[in-house]
Parts: sequence; structure tokens; C-alpha cells
Amino acid sequence: MVINPKEEMRLAAIRGLYDYREDIPEIVEKLVEIHNDVNNFDRESSEPVPSRDAIIRIIHQFRRILFPGYFAPVKLDKVSLQYYLGQEAVLLFEQLSHQITLCLKSDNAGKGLSCVYCDEQGREEAIRFMKQLPELKVLLTKDVQAGYEGDPAAGSLDEIILCYPGILAVTVYRIAHHLYRQNIPLMPRIISEYVHGLTGIDIHPGANIGASFFIDHGVGVVIGATADIGNRVRIYQGVTLGALAIPKEDVERLRTKKRHPTIEDDVIIYAGATILGGETVIGAGSVIGGNVWLTESVPPGTKVFIKKPELILKGSSR
Amino acid sequence: MVINPKEEMRLAAIRGLYDYREDIPEIVEKLVEIHNDVNNFDRESSEPVPSRDAIIRIIHQFRRILFPGYFAPVKLDKVSLQYYLGQEAVLLFEQLSHQITLCLKSDNAGKGLSCVYCDEQGREEAIRFMKQLPELKVLLTKDVQAGYEGDPAAGSLDEIILCYPGILAVTVYRIAHHLYRQNIPLMPRIISEYVHGLTGIDIHPGANIGASFFIDHGVGVVIGATADIGNRVRIYQGVTLGALAIPKEDVERLRTKKRHPTIEDDVIIYAGATILGGETVIGAGSVIGGNVWLTESVPPGTKVFIKKPELILKGSSR
Amino acid sequence: MVINPKEEMRLAAIRGLYDYREDIPEIVEKLVEIHNDVNNFDRESSEPVPSRDAIIRIIHQFRRILFPGYFAPVKLDKVSLQYYLGQEAVLLFEQLSHQITLCLKSDNAGKGLSCVYCDEQGREEAIRFMKQLPELKVLLTKDVQAGYEGDPAAGSLDEIILCYPGILAVTVYRIAHHLYRQNIPLMPRIISEYVHGLTGIDIHPGANIGASFFIDHGVGVVIGATADIGNRVRIYQGVTLGALAIPKEDVERLRTKKRHPTIEDDVIIYAGATILGGETVIGAGSVIGGNVWLTESVPPGTKVFIKKPELILKGSSR
Amino acid sequence: MVINPKEEMRLAAIRGLYDYREDIPEIVEKLVEIHNDVNNFDRESSEPVPSRDAIIRIIHQFRRILFPGYFAPVKLDKVSLQYYLGQEAVLLFEQLSHQITLCLKSDNAGKGLSCVYCDEQGREEAIRFMKQLPELKVLLTKDVQAGYEGDPAAGSLDEIILCYPGILAVTVYRIAHHLYRQNIPLMPRIISEYVHGLTGIDIHPGANIGASFFIDHGVGVVIGATADIGNRVRIYQGVTLGALAIPKEDVERLRTKKRHPTIEDDVIIYAGATILGGETVIGAGSVIGGNVWLTESVPPGTKVFIKKPELILKGSSR
Amino acid sequence: MVINPKEEMRLAAIRGLYDYREDIPEIVEKLVEIHNDVNNFDRESSEPVPSRDAIIRIIHQFRRILFPGYFAPVKLDKVSLQYYLGQEAVLLFEQLSHQITLCLKSDNAGKGLSCVYCDEQGREEAIRFMKQLPELKVLLTKDVQAGYEGDPAAGSLDEIILCYPGILAVTVYRIAHHLYRQNIPLMPRIISEYVHGLTGIDIHPGANIGASFFIDHGVGVVIGATADIGNRVRIYQGVTLGALAIPKEDVERLRTKKRHPTIEDDVIIYAGATILGGETVIGAGSVIGGNVWLTESVPPGTKVFIKKPELILKGSSR
Amino acid sequence: MVINPKEEMRLAAIRGLYDYREDIPEIVEKLVEIHNDVNNFDRESSEPVPSRDAIIRIIHQFRRILFPGYFAPVKLDKVSLQYYLGQEAVLLFEQLSHQITLCLKSDNAGKGLSCVYCDEQGREEAIRFMKQLPELKVLLTKDVQAGYEGDPAAGSLDEIILCYPGILAVTVYRIAHHLYRQNIPLMPRIISEYVHGLTGIDIHPGANIGASFFIDHGVGVVIGATADIGNRVRIYQGVTLGALAIPKEDVERLRTKKRHPTIEDDVIIYAGATILGGETVIGAGSVIGGNVWLTESVPPGTKVFIKKPELILKGSSR
Repeated sequence: MVINPKEEMRLAAIRGLYDYREDIPEIVEKLVEIHNDVNNFDRESSEPVPSRDAIIRIIHQFRRILFPGYFAPVKLDKVSLQYYLGQEAVLLFEQLSHQITLCLKSDNAGKGLSCVYCDEQGREEAIRFMKQLPELKVLLTKDVQAGYEGDPAAGSLDEIILCYPGILAVTVYRIAHHLYRQNIPLMPRIISEYVHGLTGIDIHPGANIGASFFIDHGVGVVIGATADIGNRVRIYQGVTLGALAIPKEDVERLRTKKRHPTIEDDVIIYAGATILGGETVIGAGSVIGGNVWLTESVPPGTKVFIKKPELILKGSSR
Repeated sequence: MVINPKEEMRLAAIRGLYDYREDIPEIVEKLVEIHNDVNNFDRESSEPVPSRDAIIRIIHQFRRILFPGYFAPVKLDKVSLQYYLGQEAVLLFEQLSHQITLCLKSDNAGKGLSCVYCDEQGREEAIRFMKQLPELKVLLTKDVQAGYEGDPAAGSLDEIILCYPGILAVTVYRIAHHLYRQNIPLMPRIISEYVHGLTGIDIHPGANIGASFFIDHGVGVVIGATADIGNRVRIYQGVTLGALAIPKEDVERLRTKKRHPTIEDDVIIYAGATILGGETVIGAGSVIGGNVWLTESVPPGTKVFIKKPELILKGSSR
Repeated sequence: MVINPKEEMRLAAIRGLYDYREDIPEIVEKLVEIHNDVNNFDRESSEPVPSRDAIIRIIHQFRRILFPGYFAPVKLDKVSLQYYLGQEAVLLFEQLSHQITLCLKSDNAGKGLSCVYCDEQGREEAIRFMKQLPELKVLLTKDVQAGYEGDPAAGSLDEIILCYPGILAVTVYRIAHHLYRQNIPLMPRIISEYVHGLTGIDIHPGANIGASFFIDHGVGVVIGATADIGNRVRIYQGVTLGALAIPKEDVERLRTKKRHPTIEDDVIIYAGATILGGETVIGAGSVIGGNVWLTESVPPGTKVFIKKPELILKGSSR
Repeated sequence: MVINPKEEMRLAAIRGLYDYREDIPEIVEKLVEIHNDVNNFDRESSEPVPSRDAIIRIIHQFRRILFPGYFAPVKLDKVSLQYYLGQEAVLLFEQLSHQITLCLKSDNAGKGLSCVYCDEQGREEAIRFMKQLPELKVLLTKDVQAGYEGDPAAGSLDEIILCYPGILAVTVYRIAHHLYRQNIPLMPRIISEYVHGLTGIDIHPGANIGASFFIDHGVGVVIGATADIGNRVRIYQGVTLGALAIPKEDVERLRTKKRHPTIEDDVIIYAGATILGGETVIGAGSVIGGNVWLTESVPPGTKVFIKKPELILKGSSR
Repeated sequence: MVINPKEEMRLAAIRGLYDYREDIPEIVEKLVEIHNDVNNFDRESSEPVPSRDAIIRIIHQFRRILFPGYFAPVKLDKVSLQYYLGQEAVLLFEQLSHQITLCLKSDNAGKGLSCVYCDEQGREEAIRFMKQLPELKVLLTKDVQAGYEGDPAAGSLDEIILCYPGILAVTVYRIAHHLYRQNIPLMPRIISEYVHGLTGIDIHPGANIGASFFIDHGVGVVIGATADIGNRVRIYQGVTLGALAIPKEDVERLRTKKRHPTIEDDVIIYAGATILGGETVIGAGSVIGGNVWLTESVPPGTKVFIKKPELILKGSSR
Repeated sequence: MVINPKEEMRLAAIRGLYDYREDIPEIVEKLVEIHNDVNNFDRESSEPVPSRDAIIRIIHQFRRILFPGYFAPVKLDKVSLQYYLGQEAVLLFEQLSHQITLCLKSDNAGKGLSCVYCDEQGREEAIRFMKQLPELKVLLTKDVQAGYEGDPAAGSLDEIILCYPGILAVTVYRIAHHLYRQNIPLMPRIISEYVHGLTGIDIHPGANIGASFFIDHGVGVVIGATADIGNRVRIYQGVTLGALAIPKEDVERLRTKKRHPTIEDDVIIYAGATILGGETVIGAGSVIGGNVWLTESVPPGTKVFIKKPELILKGSSR
């Protein structure tokens, strides 16, 4: 009788003659080798990467500062509000400036540059960002209001702030957008991909979005880096504001060009609509119907619907 | 040489003459002011908001009670089952009644009402809900069975219960729906948005869904608040059971009206189909094909497919 | 005056005559009964189910081993790299072999089989899997590279590895695929559904996917169990590589047959495209446009676009 | 061959015929019975007991407020100090008032009294206590100073505050003493026994201790409830300031009488000394030598040493 | 100028030429070598040691079962008591039997024995121990009562149970003693040393102690392995019930002999008293004064006090 | 009727007219003021204090490295030992060097010095310390052996290492002593006071202690900073090796002089003995009996016992 090697090894293992753990050192050795060989582990001498976990904690700090009545873990009143916000602000500054510094260093290291002032710059950018928090708060209040007015199913402002993924996504987008405009590398993207994972809403931090913006349901929404969106715009799940497919050879040339559409004030875009191209402008007050596919501009006040595709109905007897 | 102010500040910071932290008090002051000014922080004297984290923990308690063999952290047998379920039930009652009370108080506070019996009512609603757990368990068993029968790729019931996002979403929907029918404010929505984030499946707790319901894959599914779904219905990713767009001026009037479709028994709806409108009825046993867009009723036993949109094929030489 | 019973109970409760907790034992009793009645709790004498939480922790161990420079919680250099990888490998082996054993036992128990060698087999499969880690690492490096080249918006390789949901989904798919090919039950599905929840990307572990694969944005992507994908393929959000709807009576017959399409090398598939059927082959170098619906093969080098559905534009005066 | 029952049971267990778990329900039943029988579980209808863990956390809050530069987990400067102390004070108030309330209720319940105003009183006592924090801080500064001056081995004030068990014990005593004087039941004792466990120093919260008090080493120190200690007193490990043994029949009569000694200003008491009795007064500036046993007063400025017990020295050759 | 090597290395380090981490591999190599050389790491092939942390958690489980009204983290009433105790008992059984098994295996491994039935024996000993919990509870109630009656300073039974280190030490001793009598190796000592660390009270688990035992203050109490203590005995801090010093050559011979004193019923022993020797018997009802040193028996009803050592008093003028 | 102010406030509070929280800002203000006034918060501009918690974690890292077979949380064998020790060593280096740096900076700041090379020096001292770990391990093995031989009650080496407070204290002393000899400020004291709290054994890190040292029971042991202890010495609970009381005016002069006794090889010191003075030498092989009080030297081979104090025995009839 011939025993196949695998079965033989298993029997040996049961008899205590073979311990699978003994194979581990060889695996480790190969992994070490690979890491060096393919230049995957070339971070050795460079700066530590920013911590995704720390940055996610920072997002929640922002939320507590921006909506303390909803997310602060303590009761807030006129006695405690100032202490609470002050304490959170101090902690935010420490952590934000540290992570910005790591992002700057990591970015410089990637370009082969050293970074003499990165610590100082991290602190400067952090405080610069934090100075915008008050107006950010005002802006977010309008988004919440827009959500309440736009969705008749919303029971209360509380419901909007506590539950709506659209509000979470817009809050985090506005934070990421400010960091993006300060040219902080990496952090805006880490932030926006985090909330993308939570909500299924993918807004590139580079997009410009006006006041009173509302996304309902939201899963599958994609908003590209050079999209421009006016005030009081409302969009639904599955809406894409994307780029036209471009030939590979033009990629580099188009990198800095506007590739995503412009949506003017007071536009509504229903579920599943796709609007593509940097020169596409949806005029103010337009309504874009569900599943519409648009690569051209429409003038203000236009209503666009698909002519529904023909259906085939067959009675079944089963 | 003229130094720009930002660079000057940075140099001063490096020399130790300027500490960015010194700007924090002004930011805090403004935040405090904003909170008062724009009435964002008007929760001061009102009740604490319900805790999203606590409510999420409650969801997991439900799962442990409903599928203890899969989610209980201890070995269960005839000795331990009763103790385990009893202990979980007692803890659930405490936490559920507390959070329901907070939801009731928060809701009353929002309406400017005080709430004398909210504690008592919280306990009453909690026990009322818990009395439905046994039949909920029976119902969920049917959903699991439907999942197993509906998906030939499913290896075992274990796989359905442990992995399938559709089952998680339906379990949580059924919980939220019961709470919704008890008129508990906020909590059903917090629950359903939590599972929306986890699965990409958005079922409004107000929807009525029959037995043996199964959602496969699921990302992008949206089921509206007044949808009615019969028994043994199966749907796929990206299916929307939504409302027709309604003019803003009619919003208030339509608020209590049925706005979402009715799906009768034994219907299958394939990926990406969109069915809209409160008067749309999909007759029993119908099959709705992928990407179909329906705003009108179809009789029982109908098969509906899109006539595929014309394609343009171009050979490419690259 | 007639008091309704509910109000009476509530008043009694307030007066301290009625404690809602007293209803708990009856609920518990019924739950115990139900668990026994409907055979929901038939796991009593069987093996414990695998721990979803433990398996999720294992995924993160993989990531730390495969991209230690990005996810290891410690500074790595030539001194520490070997220790770190060695320590992680030892821990991974312990936990992986334990969970594989639980999966094997659970699977056997489900089939009414006892499992004499499951412990030994668990260890064997774990080491067998781990031996593939080095080449997995090489493969993933190519995926990262593909992501960087495919998306002009990507700022750096760091950004791809730290942020892109597509890379996370592919990393986890490749792990799950290896386990699937080793016939480990349950675990590959738990793993792939976990990342499905995080990214909205649903790749069945059974699919075969070549090197340098990239998914952009990704929410709503579904790739079926028998799909075959070549090298250097790029796909966007909402793409489905699925099966054609099959009559219920054929389900069993088709179970082992190829039901999902084949995508050859160098194909690009844009957002929302749906490609169905086991005999559908997309020839090498083809480009499939957004929202295309394909159930037939196309030859290499083909560009397929939908003839856009007719739109209805109405000027509005609001 | 006769098998003893224990061995038989074990063999049965190995054969799978006997599961020890089956004995658990009987044990549980007996425990339940016992709890009811011997009135050990008569807390059923009464108030919850105060939480020892919560009270221990409160102690650490006090330390952070009193020595923020040493125990605060954040960097403190003129920007953050006020926020930090404010935030800590608010949290302390919430938790302290809650635990005081539980102590009051528990105490009332033990006496068969209900407690209508306990919540209000808890808040009142908490704020009353907190108003004493500033002067407590001043007092503790003197204790630290005394420690530094009294121990030539102390390297710095930092060392005293961070390491010395004597300072920890005195800090906690001063807190407990204030609570004791406010007649808060239970809490002062929980606090003092906690630090007793940590340091081996047992100071009854009822003792009166003046400023600039220092205990060196400290293990085995016992200071009774009616001891009076002046300013600038220093004591060493193993010192007892206790009561004389009293006949059982006099216990009740003596309960409110002073039973422990009075130590006047500037006294030093060396290791192992025992001073007993309520009428014993150690006059100001006295020095009590190691192991001295005193039950009578000594006038100011006395030095007391034991005449060393005779020793027996035997040369040994081993 | 001659630079000393240390300073040179430090300068090199600052210049980046020398990284102290580079010395780590050599240290690790030596540690590995040492572990093998001196047979310190000879546990390689043997069983894992019992977990001190797990055993400490078990102690707290005991306390929650024995005094649930004080230590259970949930509200207990007639609804929840049974579930709570049942659930705790099941968990205790799992963990206790596991740790007993590890203790048995570790002990056998130390003697070079394999241990075929250790798992089974661990479960058997665990259930055997748990069957004694009800009577243990009754015994502890008497200890608490004795504490309350023995210390006029005790405000309530609550205070005794929640605060008194003596009660904690006796509770834990009684548990350890039962395990000791079941011949479980290691565990009783781990338990008793844990509480020794917490309270400064060192009771060997081998000692026999009657009902209604009370230790006041307690730091420094030592009770040897063969001490016998009757009912209603009360002792104070610093009391030693020890062995006489024995010549090294007699150690082995005396190992199993009674080496520590016998204390009959109703004896009181005041602080610092030392009673030595296996033949020393303190007759019932005796009172031993503070600091007494006894190596001989005294008849029942004796009061023993030291003739106080002569004091030297010197007036000081300072 | 006159209402006292306190009662009035309480009634106002109940009526909702008075919120005790309103008093918090004044308290905070005073605390801030106090911190500035009495120079208690003069650390503002200085370096952060070392973290006591981090240093305690470092102690446990040492134990895991020195006795990995007992304290490592993973199974160790020839595959894993090197990885484990390597990983622990790398982590230890990071944390140890960081905390040493903080200790150096804090010390310099206290002296008004800045500290340019403290980071570098911290790393240097850390590696210097770690180089001594192998020989430390050898030394500790001898201490364990001494414990096993010295205490006939010890069941196994396992018991000594896992349970004995004496071994814990000596392990930690040897670590602290090395750091002390490297002139690291603060850290040795934090370490020794931590273990003092756990064991009641207070060994100053400055003491010199030879090989094979054993402390039994241990509570109350005090060993002063300039004590010298030879090889194979054994001591019991309550032993003091202390300084003679010195007049205040001589403190400074004596600070650097030897103030504590010398214990030569092979000495045994029984419980409660007190040996004082820098010139006191206990000759090799001597035995010091319980409660002996010695301030003079004894020649080698001497046995010293107290002539027992006279006892007063009174028969009692009760």
C-alpha cells in the first residue's frame, strides 16, 4: 500500500514525530527576503506612516466638537460646555498636529526629501485647520436643516444628526476638504475612505460642495475630485458625478484639468443617475431623473428623465 | 527681503517665541458662541440624547438571544441554556428600557413636552417588545431557511447565519419594525441605519415584510417606509422599492399616504431593478428582471425583463 | 370610567404593585422551548461554531504580515523585522489552525460525522496556507502597482495601501481564495463577507483572478463564484459579474457548472456594467462601457458602449 | 474487584456517560436557597450598594485634580489648565454625587428608612466637599514639603509625589476625613481601606491630623478613629496609635468616647512604637524611639527609648 | 584631546552613525543561550503553566457567587437571582476546571509524569469544590457576623463585607483551604499569595480555622501551614502563628509534622504577638496581649501580657 | 419658622431653582489660582513627568523576558523562543529608552538645566541596562533556587516563581538596583515603591545584595539605601535593616555616608528583628533571632536571641 506524502505527514504529526510549527522559520525567512527583494519594505529608514486608527479617532473628536450635544459622552450645560470644548480642542490639537506631521514626513520621505520643519508645520496646519471649525459648524447646521427639509420621512433633527449616513458623509467630507485645501497629504484620503466604508458614499476631498447639501440613502454615490456642486443640491443613492473614460496616453495631460461635472444651485439628482465630464454643467434648478446618463450640459430649470426602456412582460403559469 | 507672515510665524514658533496652542482659547470661545447663537446647542436644559453606542450593543444582545448557538460567547447545553437566556434577558430588559426611556424623553423634549411617565413607559414598552421575541425567533428561522434554499452557493445553514449580510439586515429590520410599531421614536431608525452601514442594505423600519424573505448580496437595496412585501419574496443587490418623485408642495399632504410599492407573495426581483410608487403592485409569483424600471402594476405570474438597450461594439486595435 | 388594561398596568407599576421584570421568566421559558421545538438549538451536542471575531482578527494579522511597513504597530528595521514577522507568524499559526479546526469540526458535525483528525488537519492546513504567504505578498505588490498606475488621482503607493477599499478587498479575496482552494469550509465566506461589509465589494472566494487586478471605488461590485478574470483587469463600482437567472428545477444540476463569465487579460469594465453567464467571454483588451448589460461574448479588442437611452428634457419655470 | 465510586464516576465521565456539568443546577438551587434562608440576600428590595470600583476611580480623579502636573494624562499649560480642571471637576461632581447618593440610600435602607431627598442630598454633599478642594491642595503641598524635608533619601519633590506611599496614604486620608466629617456613610471607609491595601497604612478617616504630616515606609501603621495628631508630626513603619483592650461589656459605653492617643506638634515616632489609650498625650516635640510601648502620657520635649531587651549571644561553629 | 569611548559612541549616535538598536540581536542571542544553558527554559516540551491572571479572575467569580448582593454587577431580585447564579456557576465551572487541569498537568510534568486523565480529573475536582459553595457561604456569614460584633467601629454589615481586608483574607483563605484539601497543586498558593499582596495577611491554605474568625487591621499577620484555630477566635495586625527555627538537618524530618501552634476556641490575640511551635496550645478563652512572645502552652482562660520593657525618658529642651 | 440656609438650598434645588453645578466654575477658578499661587503648578514650561503606568508596564516586560516560560502569554518552544524574546527586547528598548529620557529631562528641569542629549542618553542607558539582562537572569535563577531550598513548605520551583512575593521583590530590586547604579533618576524609586505596594517589602534600590537571597513572607521588611548584604542570606517578615535616628543638624553631613548595616554571607535573620547603623556588621553565618534589636556588630558565627520579656499570666474565670 502506498501512502501519499500528505497523509504520511499527518500520521507522523499525530504520532508526535512531526511538528508543523517547525516549518515556520523557513516561511519567516522567505518573507524577510521578499520584503527586501521586491522593495516592499523600503520604508526601513524612512519616517513612520501616519496611523489610520489615530486618524479615525480624530474624526470622532471632530464630531464631538461639532455636535457636542449629540456625541459628547457627558452632560453639557452652561457650566460644562466651555470646559468640555476646551479640553477636546486641546486634545485635538495635539493629535491632529502629530498626525499631520507624520503625513508631511511620510510624503517627503516618499519624494526622497528630508523634512526639517515638519513638526512645526504640522502644528501650524493643525491650528490653521482648527480656526475654521466655527464656520464649519455653521455650514453643517445648514446641511442638517437641508436634510430635514428634504426628507419628509425624517422625524426630527435628532434623527438626522444621529442616524443619517448622508450627514455623516458630508460632515467628514467638509473636514477632509479643508485639509485637502491645506495640501495635507494622505490624511484627507484616509478620512474620506473611512467614511466611504461606513456609508458607501465616496466623495473625493477635492470636490467643491456648496451649502445645504443633502444625500439621501447614499450607498453607491461617487463624487469625483474636480466636481463642483452649488448650494441647496440634493442627491440620492447610486448617483455618480464622474469623469469620462480617457485614453491612457492622455492621463498625465489631464491630471490637473477639471474632469468632473458642475452642478449648479438647487439641483436634484435622483437615484442611479450618472453625470460625466468636466465640461458638463447642470443648470440651476434642474431635476435629473433616476438612472439618467448624462455627458452633456443642460440649461437651468431643465427636467431630464429617461425614456423608460421597453419592457417585455410574459404571463407565467408556474 | 520681505518675509510673508506665515513663514515669520513659523520661524517664531521654531525660535520658541510663538506657541500655536495660544490660539486655542479664541477658537473655543467662538465655538461656544456659535453653539449658543445658531441654536445648535439648545439641548442644554433638555434630556440627554439616547446613546447610539448603547443601542448598537442592544442589537448584539438581540442576536445573542435569537441565535445563541452562534453568537453566545459560552458553550450552551441543557444545563446552561436557561441560565444564559435568562441572564441575557434580564440585562436586555435593563438596557432596552433605559434607552427607550431616553428616546421617549428626547422626543417629548423636542416637542416642548415634559414626560412624567417616561421611565414607566420605557419599561412597559421594553417588556412588550420582549414578549415578541419567541415568535420573532420562529420568523427568523424561516428567513434563514429561505436563504439556504434561495442560494445554491450557500454551503450550510451555519454559513447563512454567520456570514450573510442579507440575514443580518432582515434580523435587524424585524427588530426595528416591532419597535417602530410600538411608536418608539428614534431607536428604530438608529438601529436600521447601523445595519445599513454594515451591509449597504437600507430597509425602513416602517416597511411590512412577510415571512421567508431573502436578500442576496444586498449592497444598494433600498426599501421604503410604506412598502408592503408578501411571503417568500427574494430580492438582489441594488433593488429599490421607492417613492415617485413628488413636487415639494405635495410633501406634507402625502406624508401619511402609502408611497412605496406592494410586492405580493413569491416574487423574485433581480439586481438593480427599481419599482416605484404607492399604487404599484407586483402580482404574486412575478419575476422582475435585472435593471427593470417599473412604476406600474403587473398582474400575478408576470415575468418582466428589459428589452436590452442597444449596444455599440467597436473592434479596437489598441 | 373604564381604564384600559395597559394604562391600569402602568399605573400599578408606578404605584409599585407591578414589576415588569416579573414577566421575564415566562419569556425565557418560551425562548428555551422554541429553541428546542423548532430545532434551532440543535447544536447542543455538536462542536462550537468558529468565532467570527477571531477570524476577523486573523485577517488583520495577515495584513500586518503582508504589509508590515504599513500596519505593524512597531517600528521595523533590519533589527526588528525578523522578530516581528516571526512572532506574528507563530501567533497566526496558533490562531489560524485553531479556527480552521473549528470550521472543519463544525462542517463535519453538520453532516453528522465525527472528526478524529480535525485538530491535526487544522494545523496541517494552516501551515500549508502560510507557506503561500511569500508568493501572495509578491502578487499583492502587483495589485498595488496596478492601482497606482490605473488611477491618476492616486497620490502615492502609501495612499493606495492605506486607503483604497479596492486593495483591501483584493488582499482579502486572495487570502480567502487560497483557503477556499484548500477546501476549508466556512472561513473563506466569513472572511469575504467581512470585507464585503467594509467595502461594499462582494468577491466570492471561488472566483479566479489574475495578477495586477484593480477595483476603483468599488461599492456594489459583485463577482460570482465561478468567474474567471485574467491579468491586468480593471473594474469600477457597481460592476456585476453574475449568473443568468435559472429556473428553480435546474439549480441542483447547475451547482457545479461554470455560471459566471470569463474576463480575459487587459479588460476594463466601467461602472455599473453587468456581465452574466458562464459561457460569456470578454476577449482580451476589450473595454466595456458604463451600465452595459452583456450576456454574450465579445471578441478581443472590442469596445462596447450602450447606445444611451433617450432622454426627455423639459424646461421648467418653477 | 471493587471500584470506588469516585473512580467509577471518572471512568463514566471519560466514556461520556457522565457530565459533571449536570450537577450544577443542584448547586445553584442550593445557593439560591441559602441566600434566602440565612438572610444573606436580603438586599433584594433595597437600594443597590455603592460601587467599590466607581469609588476607587473617584480617588484617582481627586489625585488628578490635586496634583494635575503629575497625574493628568495630558500636557498642562496656561492654555489647557483651566479646561482640564474644569472638565475633571464636572466629571467628579457627577460621579461623586452619584456614589454619595448610593451610600446614603444604602445606609437608610439598612436602617429600614426610605430616602426621599437622597439624590438632592448627594449632590449637595458632593459640591460641599468639592468646595474644600482648594484648601486641601494647600494642605497637601505642606505634607509633600514635610516628606521632602523629613527624608534625606528623597531625591526631589517629584519623587515624593510620584513614589511615596506615605503621601498617597495621607492624600487619601485627608479626602476620606472630609467625607467622614460630612457624615457620608460607607464611602470614607471604602476609600481608606483601598489605600490600606495599596500601602499597608491604615488611617481611620475619623482621626484628626494636623498639617505637614509625614509617614516614612509605612507598612503596618495603624491610626485609630479618635486619634488626634498635631502639626509637623513624623512617624515610621509599624507605628500603632491604638485603643487599650477593653472588656466586652464596656464596648457600647465607650463607643463615642475618645479611645486613641493625642500626639502634639513636632513629635517623631520611630518604627514599631505602640501608643495606646484615649488619655495618653505625647507632649509637643517629643521623640518616641523604635518599638517603645506606651500607655501613659509624657510631657513635652521628652525622649523615650526602650531599654533594649537583653540579648543572648552564642558563638556557633556550624 | 582624548574622548572616552562612551562619549564617542553617543556622539556617533547623534551623528546617525551608530544605532543602539543594533546591539539588541546579540542580547537576544545571549538570552536564548542562557535559557537553554541553565535549564531555565526547560518547560519547552511540557505543559503550559497555570495562568495567574485567570486564577485571580476566578477568585472574583467566587466573591460574586458568595456575596452576589455586594459584588454582582447587576441588580438582583427574585427574577434574576437564579439566572445570575446559574450563569456564574457555569462560567466558574469552565474556568475552574480548566485551571485545575493546568495545575495538575504542570505538577505532573514537574515530576516527569504524563497525565492521561488530567482533563477529566480537573472537571471532577472543580465540581467537587463547587458542591461545597453553599456551606462555604454559611460559614462566611458567620465570619462577617463575628467581624461586626468584634469591632465596635464597624458601622454596618455592608462596611464589613465591602471594606474589611480581614474578611477578604478569610474568604479567600476558606476557598484556598478547600482546594488545598483536595490536593490541587499550585492553585491554593497562587490564591493565598494574591490576597497576601492585597491585604498584607498571609494565611497558609493548609491551616485549619474554625467558624466566626475575625482579623482586625491585619497587615503583617502570618498563619503557618499546620496551625489549628478554633471557633470565635479574634486576632489583630502583626500576629504571627509560626514555627520555631529548626536546624537545617531536621527540615526534611519535620516536613510533615505539626510545626505551628494550636489556638483553642474564643481566644483573642492582640497586635504584634508571636506564638511559635507545633506543641504550643493556647487554651480556650485566653487573651494574649500585644507584642507577647510565646513558645509554650497556656491553660484555658489565661491572660498573658508582657511586663512592659523599661523605658528611658529624657526631657529635652530642643 | 426659620429654615436654615442649607435646608433652604436643598429645597430650592428640589424645586429646580438651584443647581449645585453652578458652583463648579468658582471652585475651578480657585484651583487654577492655587496652582499658580503656591508654585504647585510650576511644571508648566518644563518637561512632562515620566509615566508611572508606563514604568509599571516595563516591569512586567522585564518579567516576561526574564521568566518567559512563566509569564509569556504564548507557547514557547525552539521555534518561537527567539522571535518572542527578540520582539519583547525591541519593544522594551523603545519604551525603556523613552521613559529613561523622560526621567533625565524631568531631573534636569528640576535643576533648571536644559538637556540637549537626553534622548540620545536615554537610548544609551537603555541598551546599557539591557546588556545586563543575561547575567541578571542567571542571578535570579539562584534566588529562586535559594527560595526553594530555604522554605520546606515550597512545593516546586513553579510555586516560588509564580507565587512568592519575596521573589517578586528581589527580581524587581535587582532591576531597580542596576538602574540606580546607572544614575537614572526617579525610575528606580518608582519601580521599588510599586513592588513595595504589592508585597509590603521595601528594598531601597541603592542597597547591595549578594547572590541567592531569600525573603520569606516579607510584609514589613525594610532595607535601607546603604545596606550591604552578602551571599546566601535569608530574612523573614518585619525585618528592618535601618539607620540610627540622627539629629536633624547632621542630616546633610551624613547624606553620603553609609548609614545602614552590613550583613555578611550565610546570615539568617528571623521575623521582626531590627538591625541599625552603618557600622553594624553581622558576621558571616550568624543567626539573628526574632524581634532582636541590634545596633552593634556581632562576630561571624554568632547566634543572637532576645532574652524573652517577662510575661504576666493571669488565670481568668470569665
